[in-house]
Amino acid sequence: MISRSVFDNISPLDHRYSLRKEEFESYGQYLSEKAKVKYQAAVEVALVKALAKGDVCSQAVADEIEKAAGELNVEEVYNEEKKTRHNIRALVNCIQKRVSEEAKPYVHFTTTSFDIVDTANAVRYKEATEGLILAILKDLLKILMEIALREKDTVQVGRTHGQHAVPITFGFAVAEYVSRLGNRIQAIKLAGNNLRGKIAGAVGAYNASHLFFDDPEKFEDDVLKELNLEAATHSTQIVEPEYITDFVHSLVSCFSVLASFSDDMRHLQRSEIGEVGEYFAKDQVGSSTMPHKRNPINYENVKSMWKEFMPRMITQYQDQLSEHQRDLTNSASSRFIPEIIVGLLSSANRLIRVCSKLVVDHKNIEKNFDMNKEMIVAEPLYILLASYGHPDAHEAVRRLTLEAQENNSTLRELIKDKDELKPYWDRLTEKQIELLTKPEKYTGIAAEKTEKVVEYWSKVLNVDLD
Amino acid sequence: MISRSVFDNISPLDHRYSLRKEEFESYGQYLSEKAKVKYQAAVEVALVKALAKGDVCSQAVADEIEKAAGELNVEEVYNEEKKTRHNIRALVNCIQKRVSEEAKPYVHFTTTSFDIVDTANAVRYKEATEGLILAILKDLLKILMEIALREKDTVQVGRTHGQHAVPITFGFAVAEYVSRLGNRIQAIKLAGNNLRGKIAGAVGAYNASHLFFDDPEKFEDDVLKELNLEAATHSTQIVEPEYITDFVHSLVSCFSVLASFSDDMRHLQRSEIGEVGEYFAKDQVGSSTMPHKRNPINYENVKSMWKEFMPRMITQYQDQLSEHQRDLTNSASSRFIPEIIVGLLSSANRLIRVCSKLVVDHKNIEKNFDMNKEMIVAEPLYILLASYGHPDAHEAVRRLTLEAQENNSTLRELIKDKDELKPYWDRLTEKQIELLTKPEKYTGIAAEKTEKVVEYWSKVLNVDLD
Amino acid sequence: MISRSVFDNISPLDHRYSLRKEEFESYGQYLSEKAKVKYQAAVEVALVKALAKGDVCSQAVADEIEKAAGELNVEEVYNEEKKTRHNIRALVNCIQKRVSEEAKPYVHFTTTSFDIVDTANAVRYKEATEGLILAILKDLLKILMEIALREKDTVQVGRTHGQHAVPITFGFAVAEYVSRLGNRIQAIKLAGNNLRGKIAGAVGAYNASHLFFDDPEKFEDDVLKELNLEAATHSTQIVEPEYITDFVHSLVSCFSVLASFSDDMRHLQRSEIGEVGEYFAKDQVGSSTMPHKRNPINYENVKSMWKEFMPRMITQYQDQLSEHQRDLTNSASSRFIPEIIVGLLSSANRLIRVCSKLVVDHKNIEKNFDMNKEMIVAEPLYILLASYGHPDAHEAVRRLTLEAQENNSTLRELIKDKDELKPYWDRLTEKQIELLTKPEKYTGIAAEKTEKVVEYWSKVLNVDLD
Amino acid sequence: MISRSVFDNISPLDHRYSLRKEEFESYGQYLSEKAKVKYQAAVEVALVKALAKGDVCSQAVADEIEKAAGELNVEEVYNEEKKTRHNIRALVNCIQKRVSEEAKPYVHFTTTSFDIVDTANAVRYKEATEGLILAILKDLLKILMEIALREKDTVQVGRTHGQHAVPITFGFAVAEYVSRLGNRIQAIKLAGNNLRGKIAGAVGAYNASHLFFDDPEKFEDDVLKELNLEAATHSTQIVEPEYITDFVHSLVSCFSVLASFSDDMRHLQRSEIGEVGEYFAKDQVGSSTMPHKRNPINYENVKSMWKEFMPRMITQYQDQLSEHQRDLTNSASSRFIPEIIVGLLSSANRLIRVCSKLVVDHKNIEKNFDMNKEMIVAEPLYILLASYGHPDAHEAVRRLTLEAQENNSTLRELIKDKDELKPYWDRLTEKQIELLTKPEKYTGIAAEKTEKVVEYWSKVLNVDLD
Repeated sequence: MISRSVFDNISPLDHRYSLRKEEFESYGQYLSEKAKVKYQAAVEVALVKALAKGDVCSQAVADEIEKAAGELNVEEVYNEEKKTRHNIRALVNCIQKRVSEEAKPYVHFTTTSFDIVDTANAVRYKEATEGLILAILKDLLKILMEIALREKDTVQVGRTHGQHAVPITFGFAVAEYVSRLGNRIQAIKLAGNNLRGKIAGAVGAYNASHLFFDDPEKFEDDVLKELNLEAATHSTQIVEPEYITDFVHSLVSCFSVLASFSDDMRHLQRSEIGEVGEYFAKDQVGSSTMPHKRNPINYENVKSMWKEFMPRMITQYQDQLSEHQRDLTNSASSRFIPEIIVGLLSSANRLIRVCSKLVVDHKNIEKNFDMNKEMIVAEPLYILLASYGHPDAHEAVRRLTLEAQENNSTLRELIKDKDELKPYWDRLTEKQIELLTKPEKYTGIAAEKTEKVVEYWSKVLNVDLD
Repeated sequence: MISRSVFDNISPLDHRYSLRKEEFESYGQYLSEKAKVKYQAAVEVALVKALAKGDVCSQAVADEIEKAAGELNVEEVYNEEKKTRHNIRALVNCIQKRVSEEAKPYVHFTTTSFDIVDTANAVRYKEATEGLILAILKDLLKILMEIALREKDTVQVGRTHGQHAVPITFGFAVAEYVSRLGNRIQAIKLAGNNLRGKIAGAVGAYNASHLFFDDPEKFEDDVLKELNLEAATHSTQIVEPEYITDFVHSLVSCFSVLASFSDDMRHLQRSEIGEVGEYFAKDQVGSSTMPHKRNPINYENVKSMWKEFMPRMITQYQDQLSEHQRDLTNSASSRFIPEIIVGLLSSANRLIRVCSKLVVDHKNIEKNFDMNKEMIVAEPLYILLASYGHPDAHEAVRRLTLEAQENNSTLRELIKDKDELKPYWDRLTEKQIELLTKPEKYTGIAAEKTEKVVEYWSKVLNVDLD
Repeated sequence: MISRSVFDNISPLDHRYSLRKEEFESYGQYLSEKAKVKYQAAVEVALVKALAKGDVCSQAVADEIEKAAGELNVEEVYNEEKKTRHNIRALVNCIQKRVSEEAKPYVHFTTTSFDIVDTANAVRYKEATEGLILAILKDLLKILMEIALREKDTVQVGRTHGQHAVPITFGFAVAEYVSRLGNRIQAIKLAGNNLRGKIAGAVGAYNASHLFFDDPEKFEDDVLKELNLEAATHSTQIVEPEYITDFVHSLVSCFSVLASFSDDMRHLQRSEIGEVGEYFAKDQVGSSTMPHKRNPINYENVKSMWKEFMPRMITQYQDQLSEHQRDLTNSASSRFIPEIIVGLLSSANRLIRVCSKLVVDHKNIEKNFDMNKEMIVAEPLYILLASYGHPDAHEAVRRLTLEAQENNSTLRELIKDKDELKPYWDRLTEKQIELLTKPEKYTGIAAEKTEKVVEYWSKVLNVDLD
Repeated sequence: MISRSVFDNISPLDHRYSLRKEEFESYGQYLSEKAKVKYQAAVEVALVKALAKGDVCSQAVADEIEKAAGELNVEEVYNEEKKTRHNIRALVNCIQKRVSEEAKPYVHFTTTSFDIVDTANAVRYKEATEGLILAILKDLLKILMEIALREKDTVQVGRTHGQHAVPITFGFAVAEYVSRLGNRIQAIKLAGNNLRGKIAGAVGAYNASHLFFDDPEKFEDDVLKELNLEAATHSTQIVEPEYITDFVHSLVSCFSVLASFSDDMRHLQRSEIGEVGEYFAKDQVGSSTMPHKRNPINYENVKSMWKEFMPRMITQYQDQLSEHQRDLTNSASSRFIPEIIVGLLSSANRLIRVCSKLVVDHKNIEKNFDMNKEMIVAEPLYILLASYGHPDAHEAVRRLTLEAQENNSTLRELIKDKDELKPYWDRLTEKQIELLTKPEKYTGIAAEKTEKVVEYWSKVLNVDLD
């Protein structure tokens, strides 16, 4: 067995970011090289089961091959590949070595390498979607839902352009990510379940299988059914690339949502803002030279991982181009797709850890809100003026805010002194006046919307909130 | 009116690639700056219609505003923007100037700029999808379908790794692109129709509209219904970015399919292959110095345009990140999305032109097929040997092909002389022997599959084949 | 003349971002389609001058051709291209039409289209570098230098991870961008001046020119010398792509520097920070619905433009791949390089406008600095403790800061009560104690370094500071 | 020690592409996590040496720390990090544990983590450039040089647009890559040697070091001199990003050259062309189902690896943006740079293996050349006609080639029958007529140029040709 220290590895995914044993092992089930070979063997087994079902070989032959496939290990296959210099031929040889002369011919019968490779990838990514990816992302979603509900009434200043705008609640801000993450989970589910296999032979025309089956597409369906897959409408030597392109797009676009959330959290942790915090372990060092620092390193890490993995979508688009019935220039590159998945999941797991200990500083939220409290009413003021018939309310209020800033006074003080505006002010209802004097009430339907968003996605995605 | 020579423009889309008047005008309907402002005005109209419906203003006010919005032109709005330095405020001012004092306040009532901008983009891209994008792509699809059917029985050597593999038909090769383009048309349709609008105000919490509506989401729905749109589950100042990200992904991944097809056609035109050709006009010059050249310039152009536009997907992923309730760093970049659409359509239109005159050289197809005719039978030979119980058929045939190449003989001549193989040969049926001697029959179900693929997509996408 | 309203254009570069007449015209000199054709004609002229010099044709012929080339216009060439469907042949025809029978053969003599196209691009990008790109970037650099010097003593809290760290000065923060922009200007200059031409014929082997010249490389040099260019070490039909790849890399990496600066300025404008501001015109609207907003729209715009143009580097890397002696799949894509330049320059010009009115809010800078003044001394405290022999100073200070935060006290109050630390405190010099009590002095050599950086780059790049 | 089977790893670089022991170990010296920590320790040693030199600590202290740094191993540092959650603090602790109380304070004295991290990366990438990257790339260059010289007289048809153009030699075609690879080696050398370090503290203003040094920049220089590095003009917490951006650009643009070469070789191996071949081992399997296939898998692999690694340049451009005196969002992403280097080198090593056994099929080269031999003379014919005064030679020859194709005759047969052309023909010299009848002589200066290119780069880069 070729084994080595993780610190001899090149990829950070294989040293620095794979030190949490349990996490790493959960990825490995689907995404290690070991797992890939296991899935390829499973496709060879599905093939022979369909052959037995179609009476091309006996059930005994199928059983024999299934047993053999279950026994082999990845080292053996790689050793064999040194001779064959062809990985699937190596796999086939390793199975054949273990079975009777009678069974040998039915291993890999009528198929081409990429019938196995592409189909195996489709199954494993599909199973990884259900068994791994969605599970982790939903755990994160659930935590965000809980924060959103918990903080749905926490009045916070809304920010656009980094500037104080009108009020929201912190729960509403988090609900944004509940909704966007929910939407991406749905997209990943769809794309993951839509991955396709093929048993159509060397150029996709079923040349070899047609030697033995009148309806070779039915035979293909039989094999794929064993693996819970469907065939694409057309294949060449490979499955149409668009299914996997869509799948990786769903992952990458989900990664962007995590990165956007992380950016928000980072910025809310700025010294001057301080609205949220990352829990810091007792012995944790913020800076090697500035012992007082508390850095948002986890959110920074997620953003950084996104910068590393997002551009790899370009590889997928390039891999959509394959000459004639295929060239092999997508072979090495497609071997890196598991990295994208691990990059995403490792970031999601990190967010799970850090968000479950998210500290919200209600005092700072309030303090920041108060900074521009008086200016916040500019919006409702302008709109109310307009609705009471002021012909140029936006401009009037804009000038008023300039004046308020210069004189360090409030809009509502100023408005009363303006002959031009006073008539409108006098027509406001009590409730409207209250709103202009208590801007913290001007949160629209932020709280209800938060509940609605959480409820919607918990239903659609079956996420139980305890 | 600011007008200028097209040759003063910077973007090739605005000079070189926009000289076909009709084509360019068809894009402009949805994708020029003029069109954008028109769509923004339409959202302002939808808004006031919903206000009238909800009895916030009178129908007369709504009519007045609709009329005014219909009259304005883009130059006027840009002139106004020189003062306001804010494009939507400029639009609003231009409408307000044209209406009565009573109507003025209801222009843009309770909304924020990006209620208008994002909603207007959603409508125009959605309408462009139906009215422009799908129409052109289906025209191309139809031509590919016709070629596929016409050439479904044209035996061609299948190629993998640029090497002769086993036979297909040329129609089957084209059916690959019928299927992949069909699949992308479906994806674009889905994503285009799924674009969303919003009328949720400055930070998405319906702060302003809630001053006037108990159920501001219902009001939002009313406005959007006028435009045949739905709202996203959650908004901030902007619509959740993932809808447009998915839309652009569908376009870019479709572009890759066109590029892959173009690569195939280019290579089939290589001097040594010569299986297809581009029709050349009488006076057309292939090379400025080599008068004998016939270059596949149109397919080269499509590949080149793909290289230009595909990487822009990165911009979309970056634009998914927006700080808090939004920063404006996606504003300029999102203005370039029309370029991607025009890039794609201009390539599709080019392929329509060139494919409708696609010349297939049947003689060369046959000549190339004949080159490795004898070797092609290696695959069925190996499989048949295996099925008749040869324990190591692949290896046996591999050695045989090496021998055949060295001795310049054929597999079937050699096999008879091999004591080891002869017993299997003798057991082959007449039909099987015919196949090994007439490799042009070894096309699997290429022809039937071609028909099936064409039929499937013509049904799914309602493409009538005359 | 084909002319149209700018608002019929597709690219924002040809409508929204090209409305400043002078700016747009300065770009157009080098980067419009008109300019391109003009430069191509200039290469044809250089060619015939070299022919005359080498006595292949007469000087009269050269003069005649030069005159003809000077007369033609882009519309004429495009009209001719409708017939030839080949742009360089069209150019050649247009020149030939204007000259005598004797001169006709010497137009384009022995060259291939891409001798002209690639050489013309090299000259125009090289001249654009000197005449346009560097000029604008240096204007920006100069403004940054002035701000840096002006604010070199303005104490500001340094920020890492968005957290207050130790002090710098605002001038020092700006000096970062003086240095990085200076460095990129140098890189652009180098890459722009290193662009290469070729007159090596259809496949680069000087096949045609060798019919007439014993040393066709000398003839190539003669032509290129007329244009102030050198040849690459080797050519095929095209110039080796790496020269232009390096050039675009220098532009894109410079764009990133502008984007990083813009990010900093945006964040320093956040409501809670407010250290810098964009000057706002009297009538300028910040938000269509929130009249009180002052948004950093210009910095946001630069960041957004960077997101649009940066990914296009991928196109360049793809264009490095060209089959055999070239395929044409880099032709359309390379036509978009001017867009990248205009994107960069339009952002630089924007920064020039906004930085020349940059407002620095010294009060807020001080206020923010004061927030963590007491904690800032943690670093020098730890280092001084260490230097006086404390064996674990970092850990000791880290615990002290935690205690200070909990008790709302200062480090220097606490330290005196700690039996363990007091001995070290007592050994501090007066100057060191002053530093720990006046953290605004703890700016290292920020001011001197600012001066040094400005001086260095003003010398290296010949930027005169008035 | 955490060790695991390579097949448990996620990255193909850590399983499939790292099985050649010697190759992998050569990368690991600089690029594994182990190597990184070793280089970081070396920076801590350089620091204390400079302290001793400046009499801040004793030489004995420096020696003690050097010894301690030499003893530690990566596992130990990672174990310590579990407590500190800060990798550089962990490194410092591990060194401190090993030294006397007197020495402890001088470990990491006055520096911040990224003084160590960025400087260590600069040294290791710089040393990797000289010791690893350039060595491998020059080995490849040398092989290409040998092929170029060996085949400099092998007449081959030049190809543009995949179409036969005018003749070159195969050596000349390879000389293209000698030149382009040589150019990139030079670029990598330059960028690698230009990597910079920093010892400027937490925000780059030398705050801490200025407590002890009047001229802290001199102290920085002292430390860096120990490591054979220079400082950048300005630093924040990190080194200016442009140095590493340029370095990665040089690698990526070099990778594109390898990919372009691989594309050419792949296409020259197409069944219909067959001009070059990859040597195939006796037992090597071309296809799992088509035993007769000989696939250009190594060239396909290189192209595929390029597709994987090239897009990662986007990460570098994004990492140029860092907020204020730095945010940490470039930390995780920059850890992946070694992957790009390994990707490039692993491809270069693969090309070395395959090119050293490159098989050139001279028969096929000749056969392909002969295909369009008669048409090839179109270019010299047109140019000669022109030079003898034909007013429209290009058009005349273009029409002649159409006629020749239709009538299946040759240009030189046709020309004599044309009254219009005959006069020019009669004026051709004997040598010119020979050339038109022996197109294989029409190779320009292909052979001389090949020699020149090889000689130039072997001198510039000191590559000895045996």
